[in-house]
Amino acid sequence: MSSKVSVLGLGAMGTALATKFLENGYQTTLWNRTTEKAASLVERGCRLSATIPDALQASDLILICLIDAQAVKETLSRALQSLAGKTVINLTNGTPDQARQLSELVLTHGGTEYIHGGIMAVPAMIGSSEAVLLYSGGSQENFRRVKKDLSILGTGKFLSEDAGSASLYDLALLSGMYGLFSGFLHATALVRSGEKEATATGFMSLLVPWLSGMIGYLGVMAKQIDEGNYVTQGSNIAMQIVAVENILEASETNGVSADVIHPIKSLMKLALAAGRENEDISALIEHL
Amino acid sequence: MSSKVSVLGLGAMGTALATKFLENGYQTTLWNRTTEKAASLVERGCRLSATIPDALQASDLILICLIDAQAVKETLSRALQSLAGKTVINLTNGTPDQARQLSELVLTHGGTEYIHGGIMAVPAMIGSSEAVLLYSGGSQENFRRVKKDLSILGTGKFLSEDAGSASLYDLALLSGMYGLFSGFLHATALVRSGEKEATATGFMSLLVPWLSGMIGYLGVMAKQIDEGNYVTQGSNIAMQIVAVENILEASETNGVSADVIHPIKSLMKLALAAGRENEDISALIEHL
Repeated sequence: MSSKVSVLGLGAMGTALATKFLENGYQTTLWNRTTEKAASLVERGCRLSATIPDALQASDLILICLIDAQAVKETLSRALQSLAGKTVINLTNGTPDQARQLSELVLTHGGTEYIHGGIMAVPAMIGSSEAVLLYSGGSQENFRRVKKDLSILGTGKFLSEDAGSASLYDLALLSGMYGLFSGFLHATALVRSGEKEATATGFMSLLVPWLSGMIGYLGVMAKQIDEGNYVTQGSNIAMQIVAVENILEASETNGVSADVIHPIKSLMKLALAAGRENEDISALIEHL
Repeated sequence: MSSKVSVLGLGAMGTALATKFLENGYQTTLWNRTTEKAASLVERGCRLSATIPDALQASDLILICLIDAQAVKETLSRALQSLAGKTVINLTNGTPDQARQLSELVLTHGGTEYIHGGIMAVPAMIGSSEAVLLYSGGSQENFRRVKKDLSILGTGKFLSEDAGSASLYDLALLSGMYGLFSGFLHATALVRSGEKEATATGFMSLLVPWLSGMIGYLGVMAKQIDEGNYVTQGSNIAMQIVAVENILEASETNGVSADVIHPIKSLMKLALAAGRENEDISALIEHL
């Protein structure tokens, strides 16, 4: 366990990360492209570095949370000499390939460890057990050295020694979320377009229990996918496409864009063309 | 409460409906375009009608569950003389306008009541309280006359006297489900493309709790929508579009179609162009 940490990047998330370390008694050093965001943390006891090398030299444990991989690359490139002996935890959202490239950059320049992390939480959740952080890269054994430090941020899960793995799962989970949000937005817009007095909040009393039930069905579909056996447990694709067409027609009548629904209809059409009319909607994965 | 019911349409859902009435002691009359599907129900005691007028004449309570509104219209048009005095419960998936038109058809020909229903369940759930059925059309008072009969099928909710209302909510809930399923399919495909040993079932141990948590956020977004105030509680759209671009890039690298994710990116771009960079994703509803 460390007593010092440096945090590079003070967006909403970086600020939340630094705050938790400070509250847990760490000597917390900050660096940000602009200094203004550090003001309140400095007032509370953090140290602000004027340069990136200074921030890296201040601690052996380095947390990075910037806008994208390009920003991380540019930032580290300005302090390559200071990477020796550092454990770099990069919590910046990016692709698996970007994580692997950054891992190579850090290790090539003498870094002790590069661990990539995916934060499955909003800033306000940081520090609670509900904040799940996925980690990968380095060895499981080395991860144990920083596990306790990182547990300050939330529930940590080490996935694999491939630095790209955390990003893969991070992006996949976000993708699932964007699907959920896309459906929520279209469903809510459709209800509001069809009933003047309808409220989004009122509609949630139907939508939330309905979707919670449907989440229970994902495990059934996952099993079908793993077995490659899509025999329907419920409604087959031939029937479901009728419902999708009704959604599209009602949306058009009400002047609501159904763009978020079109892709699944296209997948259904591909599946029907491939003779999958009696299969479950899980079979659509064969056409992705 | 009735003692007789006629069920028109013996797909998987119609069969489930007829079965529950039979099990509850109703004299259950069946009609289907083809007779084969009625065989096992007839063996258990149902009566099979050779014609639609005969099926209508057999009971005052008529349940219809066909493939689409066109099929319902054609079916009823062959027995208009037999609609007088009938309470027609149409559980066929369709649009609000289709429901209103069918309501008019039934009432114009002497039907006592037209109630449209949306079944938020798969056939196996029929008869359990988990099966939610949304009803609308006719008066709330008249609905009470059939409430007990319909309670045999699941948890019934009467929405409004507008025959189209049940379809509106039915389609909206399905739309939310298709969003969820779209995200599930893409997320699972992305994980499988990036890790050879990954299983869909294994991924559910991350995806299911994550999405369950995100469902809790829908209420927050619904409130923002009702208030027209999209000030972010978490990550703003400017940050979220970076994650979406990473999803698209990782999908392309791994050869996975990201078609289900593109629409929300387009909405984000519209929102950014409208100056919503500091707003929450709920603001996208303004661009639907």
